[in-house]
This record gives sequence, C-alpha cells and structure tokens, in this order.
Amino acid sequence: MKSIKLIIKTDSQKYPIIIGRKLLSKISYILKDNYIEFGKCLLVLDKNVPIKLVNKIKKSFKKKKIILFKINANEKNKNQKTVNSILKILLDKNFSRNDCLISVGGGITGDISGFAASVYKRGIQFVNMPTTLLSQVDSSIGGKTGVNTIHGKNLIGSFYQPKLVISDIDFLKTLNKREIICGYGEILKHSIISNKTFFKYLDKNYFSIVDLKSPFIEKAISQSCKIKRSVVEKDEKEIGMRKVLNFGHTFAHAFEASLGYSKKLNHGEAVILGIKTALRFSYRNKLLNITDFKILMDHIGKPKLPSDIKKYFSLKDLNKIIHFMMIDKKNISNKINLVLLKRIGSPLINQKYNKNNLRLFIKKELLN
Amino acid sequence: MKSIKLIIKTDSQKYPIIIGRKLLSKISYILKDNYIEFGKCLLVLDKNVPIKLVNKIKKSFKKKKIILFKINANEKNKNQKTVNSILKILLDKNFSRNDCLISVGGGITGDISGFAASVYKRGIQFVNMPTTLLSQVDSSIGGKTGVNTIHGKNLIGSFYQPKLVISDIDFLKTLNKREIICGYGEILKHSIISNKTFFKYLDKNYFSIVDLKSPFIEKAISQSCKIKRSVVEKDEKEIGMRKVLNFGHTFAHAFEASLGYSKKLNHGEAVILGIKTALRFSYRNKLLNITDFKILMDHIGKPKLPSDIKKYFSLKDLNKIIHFMMIDKKNISNKINLVLLKRIGSPLINQKYNKNNLRLFIKKELLN
Repeated sequence: MKSIKLIIKTDSQKYPIIIGRKLLSKISYILKDNYIEFGKCLLVLDKNVPIKLVNKIKKSFKKKKIILFKINANEKNKNQKTVNSILKILLDKNFSRNDCLISVGGGITGDISGFAASVYKRGIQFVNMPTTLLSQVDSSIGGKTGVNTIHGKNLIGSFYQPKLVISDIDFLKTLNKREIICGYGEILKHSIISNKTFFKYLDKNYFSIVDLKSPFIEKAISQSCKIKRSVVEKDEKEIGMRKVLNFGHTFAHAFEASLGYSKKLNHGEAVILGIKTALRFSYRNKLLNITDFKILMDHIGKPKLPSDIKKYFSLKDLNKIIHFMMIDKKNISNKINLVLLKRIGSPLINQKYNKNNLRLFIKKELLN
Repeated sequence: MKSIKLIIKTDSQKYPIIIGRKLLSKISYILKDNYIEFGKCLLVLDKNVPIKLVNKIKKSFKKKKIILFKINANEKNKNQKTVNSILKILLDKNFSRNDCLISVGGGITGDISGFAASVYKRGIQFVNMPTTLLSQVDSSIGGKTGVNTIHGKNLIGSFYQPKLVISDIDFLKTLNKREIICGYGEILKHSIISNKTFFKYLDKNYFSIVDLKSPFIEKAISQSCKIKRSVVEKDEKEIGMRKVLNFGHTFAHAFEASLGYSKKLNHGEAVILGIKTALRFSYRNKLLNITDFKILMDHIGKPKLPSDIKKYFSLKDLNKIIHFMMIDKKNISNKINLVLLKRIGSPLINQKYNKNNLRLFIKKELLN
C-alpha cells in the first residue's frame, strides 16, 4: 500500500500526517519534502523504541547533526522534571527557534516533547513520530501537549501543533497485543462519536485490525485520524465541540489517577473502561436507546478488550474516583461535565451531573 | 479625559485594551462589560503596588471570591519557580479553565502570570492590569509571556493573549521618575520604527509626557499601543515583521544579562542604551543617514535619559556581552540577527552580522 497523506488545518497551523510502512529510512527526505529545515535536531526517544528502528532513523539523517535523548516514558515521569531535562539540552546546546525537536515514542513521549517544544523560546519546530497505535490514531493529532501533576493528569500543558506527523506502521509490529488494544480503544471511541458505518467496519474486521493486517489497520488508522481532524479543525482550543473527543475520558482519567497511574491499567485500557461506563451511564439516564447500547456492549465484550471494572477497583476506591472526576479540567463550577451518547454517531457534550449522582451510579452499577 | 478603548485582533484572540484614569474602583463592571465571567479569581500582585490601590481593586469585587497572591517581581524571580508557585495555588484551589487570573503589576508580573495562565489546564482566562508605563505601552500588548533561565532572558515562555488589558494611568503616579523613563524608552522605540510624526510629537512634548500631564501621556500611551497593535496583528508569532519590535533589544538583553539583571540597569534603561547602540551601529554600517542619526542622538541626549554605556560597562565585560548576543532567540545559525534603522520609520529586520563585527564595534565605539 502507498502511504496516505492527510492535511490538518487548524487556526494556528496547517500540517501533514503521513501514514505508511517503511518510512523510517526515508525520514530525511520526508522532512525536506515537507519544508522542514533546521541546523540542529533533538530526537526525544522513548527508551522502549527498538534499537533496530532507532538505528534506521539515525542512518536516514546521514551527516546531519542530531542529538539523541532517551526518556523512560511512563505516566510517573510525565512531569515538569522530564520537560526540564529536555529544555536543559535545548538551552545548553543553544537551539534556535528554527531548529527542530522530533518525538519518537507513544503519546506520553509526544505530550512531554510537544510541551517542551512549545515553551522553548516560545515554540520551536516540532515533528511527531508516534510509535504506538494509540498515539497514531489519537494523541499525535490536534496539538494537545501536557504533563501530569500530583493533582491529576495533563493539568499543565499547552495547545501546540506539530509541523509534521509521521506514523509508520512498522513501529506497531514491535508492540504487544495489550498495547494494540489500547490504541483500539480510541479508534472505537472515534467511531462511536461520529460514524455508524465506521463502527460497523470495526465490528466486522476487529480481528484483522488488531492483528495489523493490511489494508484493515491502515483504514482504521486513517479513518480515525480523519474523524479527529474534522473535530480539531472546527475547534482547536476545545471551546465547544472538541469536547466530544473526551467521550469516556472523564471516567478513564479518574480510573487511572485512582490507581496512581499504575501499569496495572494503562491509558487505553482505562479509556475502554471509561467508554463502557459512559455508555452505561447514558443508558441508565435514558439518553441512549437500548438497541445501540446492546450493539456497543457486545462489541466491548470481544476477546482481549478489558471490560470488568471490578478487576481493578472495589468499593473502597469510590471516593478517590469521584474526587478525580471532580477536578477534571472540563468542569464548570461544581458539576461534573460529561460527554454522553444519544446514539452511535450522536454524542452529547456538557452533560452536567453532581457528584452524588455519579457516586450512586458507580457504587450500584459498577462496583457492586 | 474619557477612557480610550482599543481592540486588538490576532489570529488566536480578539481583545480590548482600556486606557484611562480612575478605573480601579470599576474593575468589576469593566470585566462584566467585556464578557469576562468566572467563579474564582486569582490576583497575582507585584508587592510594590501601593496598598491603597490594591484595596480599591479588592473593594470593587465586592462579595466575589478573589484570592490575592503577592510576588516580589524582579528579573531574578522571573523564573519557573515563581510560575510554579502560581500554578500550585490554581491546582490547590482547583481552578477551572473558565476561572480567571488577573495580573496586577509591571511587565515582569505580567510575563510570569501570563505564562502560568497559558499552561494551567492549557490556558485559563487571563486579564492584565499593567501598573508601569513600560508594561502599559509595550509588554501588555501582543501576548508574549515568559521567564528567564540561567542561560538568558525569556528563554521559556509562550504566546498567549489576554482576554482584556486595563491600563490605569493612576498607577503611574505612584512610580518614580526612573521608572517613567523606562517606559518612555519603548514609546521612543515605537516612534522610531514606525512614524516620524509621532517621533516629532515626542521630541516636542518630552517633558509633559514624562511629567504625566494630560493629554500628552494619554496620547503617548495610546499611540504607542496602536503601533504595537499594527505589528502584532500582522505577525502574532514573530515569524517576520514583528521582529521590528526588537529594535535595540538584542543589545539591551545582552546588557542586562551581562549585569546579571542587576537593579543598577533596569530593562527600560537597557532598552534606551540598546536603541542608542543600534542607531550608532546602523550609522557606522552606512544604513542610517546622518540627519536622522543626529536628530535621534539629540533626543536620546535629553535630561534623565540614560545614554552613557561606560557608566555600566568596561572592556572586561565585552566577552560577556557578545556571548549573550550570540544566544539571542532571533539568531539563525551562528550569525547575530539584528534590527537596524534606515531612517525614522524604516527599520530593517534580519540584519545578520558575525560576532567579530560586533565585538570590534562595541570595543571601539562604546567601551573605548
């Protein structure tokens, strides 16, 4: 299959996403083709990216001066300290605004690197090479950057668009199934909030997609990117309808935070549990019809998809979960602001509930 | 005089600047008039703002919940640590994106607060109340935020537009003459880079302006804001012509940094010395004609304006000055990128010189 090129146009920047296979040895050409020039280049790499692939990238730059900086990308290290370690290199090496920072890693690496790129001299050129399915279909698009604080996830960050996104499917072949499933969660979310035809495609081809078979995985990634693009282009700063992308995420963030961002439950798994919770809450509040509710629940019941919240939480976690929902960025005054579902393709934003509603629901329906 | 309202339109935001007297007791109405609503509000105050004026502001909010946080705003404290102390309050008090941060202070307070506002939950509502002439005529307009690092000034920051700027001339009456002169430096710069008529007005009314007489000071402030507006609207992110605003600043930043941001030479004074240096360098490189050069040098020779670089530096500082010029944000590859002058109203951007040129010039012309 030939590579796919999508163009994202936001208020602040226009940039391409390139999706394909065997792109790594051509990085240098791809950058040049897309008018990205620089004197110096810092590659921020997740330490888990296989050395074989790193070497391919290095080789592609030939004599061009690049600096490699490996980080241990996990939610615990997704903090200001790691951002500062990147800024220190840029400062020490006297990078100019026209130099370049390239992120090679998953969503965490991209969020940390993108934030560093956005605040260094008020913004240097940023290229994102997402290496996980989750980051290829979701976090690499739309310009959200950020780090966690002890108070919660992504509470410090910026909106900063990359100059280019390069999504090489060869990266995905190095991931284990659990990581593929994580990315699948966001693909599923994109289908639920926007497009019944795409949801049906996923339902039919689920196994081919998670086995990374061509052309199914390419179609799933590019369709997912297109859905995210259409939302982000209309509302870059999440003033209104970009909130639909948070479907399932208020729950997901609270689940992750309650477990202290432990490896036991990673972001994508939390999202799938969050989607399931949001669907059930939508149904219980008579927003979602029973037909769509059942179809969706059946899908989430497919092999390998996490679906049992009680595997991770018990009643003693209830207060923690509610606490983290209360401090969500999207809340206004003291209500929890949720995205819920009317039917497949029709999300409802700004659904405000008080914490007692949510506490009762989670207690009765999920943890009982 | 009635207050003046200017509207700034950048790619990312449209917002008003209100310039007038006796505005402090009306803050609450002004916010409402300009559609700024919030649940919680944090006032970040420079500790030097007179308590009488702070009380006026507090009183204006009536029963509305506001939190006051005083900072010791100087170049040494303009760092990530102070930003973090603001972020800590926002996090601890669980501010939402729709809450508000108001800066009450000079350029340093505004830059620190604006940066904190821009990264907290990727941006909360920000209102700037500049209290110095320098911040009223310059730094409060255009959305540059940032902090210093040991490597230099404003190396970490963002572009983030406020929702509203309130410039009350009553603040200026509490400043000493040295601080008024500092702001005057930027007014002068604005006239030099854009408008000979305005320069002549300044030359004629210099004493009335620095004595804060009506309508001279109002005219100087609003005209200065209009010039900055016209530049910022065309080039929010300083990709091209916004660089003209850096006229004199590459030198000024290097002067300040070489003295470790000591109180001996404050930013506005450094700017006036920087303007003088840029003019002399433009003239020596046969860019600026002798008539304009002489008129400008005469003006900078007026009482109270700092003009003797040797008062602050000697030959032993030369390496330091050149070093700080070399790490300026605007440089590309290894050239020093200057804004110079052809004639009053005609600046030249992207004038690239190597460090030996500059070293020789500064050694021979300024420090000899």
